Amino acid sequence: MLVVNQGLKMGKGKVAAQAGHACVHALLGLEEAHHGVLDAWLSSGQRKICVKGRDADHLLALQSSAQQAGLPTSLVRDAGHTQIPAGSLTVLSIGPANEEALDAITGDLPLL
Amino acid sequence: MLVVNQGLKMGKGKVAAQAGHACVHALLGLEEAHHGVLDAWLSSGQRKICVKGRDADHLLALQSSAQQAGLPTSLVRDAGHTQIPAGSLTVLSIGPANEEALDAITGDLPLL
Repeated sequence: MLVVNQGLKMGKGKVAAQAGHACVHALLGLEEAHHGVLDAWLSSGQRKICVKGRDADHLLALQSSAQQAGLPTSLVRDAGHTQIPAGSLTVLSIGPANEEALDAITGDLPLL
Repeated sequence: MLVVNQGLKMGKGKVAAQAGHACVHALLGLEEAHHGVLDAWLSSGQRKICVKGRDADHLLALQSSAQQAGLPTSLVRDAGHTQIPAGSLTVLSIGPANEEALDAITGDLPLL
């Protein structure tokens, strides 16, 4: 699940690049305990869903909820070469995880 | 370098998810010979740039050029659950590679 910060003015290409960052971070940073879920996710089409987060505080609150639920998360902080200020939180990834666990955290957020 | 198929009607979230697919494919499918470039790319902010490709044929032609130049590529074929027909080519990734090599292939394409 990719939660994109709507408080930033990011064009389509910028969001896509940030989503790519999030996926690479999520994959490389995943702890051993989650590797079973990773394998299942990779072998079932590695589904990704993009939803709208309101702002940086919202992304941080969602990350905290996900962590409390034992889900892997990763947060992309932009280097700020283009479009937005350096250090901006652009995308929060949660998972890979099962659908029910993700829905409990992000189920009420609109699709991007 | 992520070349996004503009012949398909994909919204922002769809493009972002496809870019995520492309990054995961590119990373997991990368042959041993390119691991040196991968390490350099990861340790230097794993830069990603999104540009516009005209259609599926254009993506395939670019992939062919990149392969002839010895660059790693990966092509995302959408499962078609949402928005577009199943099997559509959505994103071509080229690299990681150095800037000059990428520019020779995609330098004339407009940014997404």
